[in-house]
Amino acid sequence: MQKRPSAGASPARITSAAFKALLRDHLPMMADWGVKVETIGHGTATLSVPAGRRFLRPGDTVSGPVMMGLADVALYAALLGAIGPVPLAVTSNLTINFLRKPGAGGIRAEAAILRLGRRLATGEVRLYGKSSDLLAAHVISSYAIPNEISGA
Amino acid sequence: MQKRPSAGASPARITSAAFKALLRDHLPMMADWGVKVETIGHGTATLSVPAGRRFLRPGDTVSGPVMMGLADVALYAALLGAIGPVPLAVTSNLTINFLRKPGAGGIRAEAAILRLGRRLATGEVRLYGKSSDLLAAHVISSYAIPNEISGA
Amino acid sequence: MQKRPSAGASPARITSAAFKALLRDHLPMMADWGVKVETIGHGTATLSVPAGRRFLRPGDTVSGPVMMGLADVALYAALLGAIGPVPLAVTSNLTINFLRKPGAGGIRAEAAILRLGRRLATGEVRLYGKSSDLLAAHVISSYAIPNEISGA
Amino acid sequence: MQKRPSAGASPARITSAAFKALLRDHLPMMADWGVKVETIGHGTATLSVPAGRRFLRPGDTVSGPVMMGLADVALYAALLGAIGPVPLAVTSNLTINFLRKPGAGGIRAEAAILRLGRRLATGEVRLYGKSSDLLAAHVISSYAIPNEISGA
Repeated sequence: MQKRPSAGASPARITSAAFKALLRDHLPMMADWGVKVETIGHGTATLSVPAGRRFLRPGDTVSGPVMMGLADVALYAALLGAIGPVPLAVTSNLTINFLRKPGAGGIRAEAAILRLGRRLATGEVRLYGKSSDLLAAHVISSYAIPNEISGA
Repeated sequence: MQKRPSAGASPARITSAAFKALLRDHLPMMADWGVKVETIGHGTATLSVPAGRRFLRPGDTVSGPVMMGLADVALYAALLGAIGPVPLAVTSNLTINFLRKPGAGGIRAEAAILRLGRRLATGEVRLYGKSSDLLAAHVISSYAIPNEISGA
Repeated sequence: MQKRPSAGASPARITSAAFKALLRDHLPMMADWGVKVETIGHGTATLSVPAGRRFLRPGDTVSGPVMMGLADVALYAALLGAIGPVPLAVTSNLTINFLRKPGAGGIRAEAAILRLGRRLATGEVRLYGKSSDLLAAHVISSYAIPNEISGA
Repeated sequence: MQKRPSAGASPARITSAAFKALLRDHLPMMADWGVKVETIGHGTATLSVPAGRRFLRPGDTVSGPVMMGLADVALYAALLGAIGPVPLAVTSNLTINFLRKPGAGGIRAEAAILRLGRRLATGEVRLYGKSSDLLAAHVISSYAIPNEISGA
């Protein structure tokens, strides 16, 4: 039932290695969290964070901020997979619905662009506890694409 | 024009010291970020994060995940200010709109509960760059309140 | 990649005919719009509105309020498909992202519950211009389920 | 605590009469609902809908779609109050949180732009049951401003 965009139809415009370098050089918190880039496609990406005591909140489950941060960077990866290395693309808005406590393990984020406009890209991210099929959280979010690039 | 709840009408049901201890013991990431509790009232709270290179993103401005995390914990403080120490209250959903880049300095979050139900509390958070009056981001978010407590 | 709930696994707990009667008797605006119930399953539903000049906005395209209203009632149908006739279930929150102008024709809404809790159900709705595969809008929304029923 | 934009600092760039004409000619559903334009300022607006049986839902309270539609058109009025008659400005996203059932009477929407960019404007709307001070719902929403105008 899901109509996904051109995911898979075109090659990614950024490599996983280039995106990892961007994290290391320009998103130090994500690098510090140990965010792992599983795959990047044209408008899609799967990223994960490992388990870690520092990520937990009362109830012994991964905290909301970790899930929001992972979702945000996963959609950034999916977007750069579609438009290439445009680091100044910035989140315009993000809505997260927490559905099930993921527990204390790692988290996997599957991101996909739903619509890529010249100035705004909107996508969704589905978050899962590692090795779980049950949605832990759902994210919908838009990125603003800077003019100089989107007009190119 | 803003109708805020009973902010100020009743004393806070958690002290700043008790909330700081909760951060230290149960939200290690927030403690690690150096989140500072400025004030907690009955359904209101002001918290801040200091400036830090690790918080930045491309464009030399505080990253979205830091603002989302700070907003989430600020609303948690406002909620516990209204219902007392209920650490198992959990975020149900959160919507953030990023309005202006806050720059590289610290961030201040002003949170207020808009409606406190037995099972769900909804509030908003306004985020500002330190010593700025211009909104950097607006957050609306709901917390689920566990049964055993809310029924008490 | 989409993990949908038990859609299809169980029979719907409300029939299309019963839901149509509910619209006619208790949601007069939806009945007046000519909302059509295509299918209701256990936690899923497809509803549509016909084309109509009264539904348009500047740009000769269906207006946002029509898409929001249709999405809201479609998720209500999906929810009642899962929990049975509980008319007092009420929308708690709704986020819509408009992705592509659907034009002046009818609109189809495909709703699915992502998580059904005792007190809160969250689902998403995808809106399409009639006979289009391209997403016109994406909705994520939660319904509060009244106590007397959910505790039953 | 609320930092509102230049509300009041500048005169409105559309008159109430011109906005009413726009409703009548181009938003027939809003005109049919009897939406009343109370005031429009530069980035602010107050609009209302009268009571009406057709607006109700189970529980004898105004339905969500009516509140979403009123909020959407109220923010449109606030935006045109700031940028002038740009009918092709379109809603990009909208998040509503329903806080208290407003009952069966009329609804008042108070809208204010929080940030007016060249391409995107974001604002909030507070919805009240007529003659009530208690928030019935809170809306945050963004409008996309078409290029030709915003670049003028």
